[in-house]
Amino acid sequence: MKTPSSLDFLTESLRRLPGVGPKSAQRMAFHLMQHDREGALQLGRALSQAAERVRHCAMCNTFTEREICEVCLDGERNPELLCVVETPGDQLMIEQTLTYKGLYFVLMGRLSPLDGIGPRDIHLEKLITRATDGVVKEVVLATNFTNEGEATAHYISETLKARGLKVSRLARGVPVGGELEYVDAGTIARAMLDRRTT
Amino acid sequence: MKTPSSLDFLTESLRRLPGVGPKSAQRMAFHLMQHDREGALQLGRALSQAAERVRHCAMCNTFTEREICEVCLDGERNPELLCVVETPGDQLMIEQTLTYKGLYFVLMGRLSPLDGIGPRDIHLEKLITRATDGVVKEVVLATNFTNEGEATAHYISETLKARGLKVSRLARGVPVGGELEYVDAGTIARAMLDRRTT
Repeated sequence: MKTPSSLDFLTESLRRLPGVGPKSAQRMAFHLMQHDREGALQLGRALSQAAERVRHCAMCNTFTEREICEVCLDGERNPELLCVVETPGDQLMIEQTLTYKGLYFVLMGRLSPLDGIGPRDIHLEKLITRATDGVVKEVVLATNFTNEGEATAHYISETLKARGLKVSRLARGVPVGGELEYVDAGTIARAMLDRRTT
Repeated sequence: MKTPSSLDFLTESLRRLPGVGPKSAQRMAFHLMQHDREGALQLGRALSQAAERVRHCAMCNTFTEREICEVCLDGERNPELLCVVETPGDQLMIEQTLTYKGLYFVLMGRLSPLDGIGPRDIHLEKLITRATDGVVKEVVLATNFTNEGEATAHYISETLKARGLKVSRLARGVPVGGELEYVDAGTIARAMLDRRTT
């Protein structure tokens, strides 16, 4: 028995989405064909439109449709502070805290030698050029606190400090609302070492 | 902070896929833009192609690109047997067993009054017309053994028996490889009632 070829092609194409296996892809394809053809057409348009229009900000490397993104163009921000994040999603999370008013640099990835992701893939040259523009005074490393994120932060830190920049890292410690009993030993050890005088 | 509008539109459109929430949609959109624009374009083409070409088989109601699907056109099959399934995926599973050589009818759903899915949504009129063509002798109900699937089977069974057709249902019982200790009581009760002389 063969399913129609354009349905096969759709199922196969849906598998290129991250986290979508053969069963989910089939379920998605059937759902769209059965209940939401309008959605299928809309998603099709959205995909080609985005693939055509979205590019990287010349300054901060995030996704934008213009040469320079809105955040980088925002005159209200402190240009002496540059926060380095892995993804636009991470940037969004930091923006939501309303505690940071500087600019950003988005790596669009993290160092991961095991996956073959080296300094070039995280746009390190672009970051060095950006950070050494003479205006930036401090680089805040806000990569994830995973092994890869920590390694990325360490690598960038060494590279930028060698160029005379001040480099800082988001504080590690017990999360707000965290109960010691349920926090891992590594986090508590870190919080103990980094304890602050009140 | 605003993400570019075509990226927003893509993220929003990805949420129309079943099982995709806001976080997954964002991750998918970022992944496609960052690592797989070719995949984005391909998926876009697949979606519009499928939405345009895929329709329902005039005989069995499954997805096809022609008037009548390949299975219904297959002269090797026994036209006196009609197996009723909920989805093309279910049909595929039955085909893989190689134990059934009749034809199919695909409901493209199940009765579910709580979700507002009634007899019209599962193409019951089309099934009645198909089953009472004078050739079909036996209808095998192979809807799922869930509450909705059982209710659907019961409803179809009553409707078709009233028209003088022989109606059967897939056997219920202990799964192959099943250990009694781990099988639920309902299944064992059913297997006891339906026990067979060996």
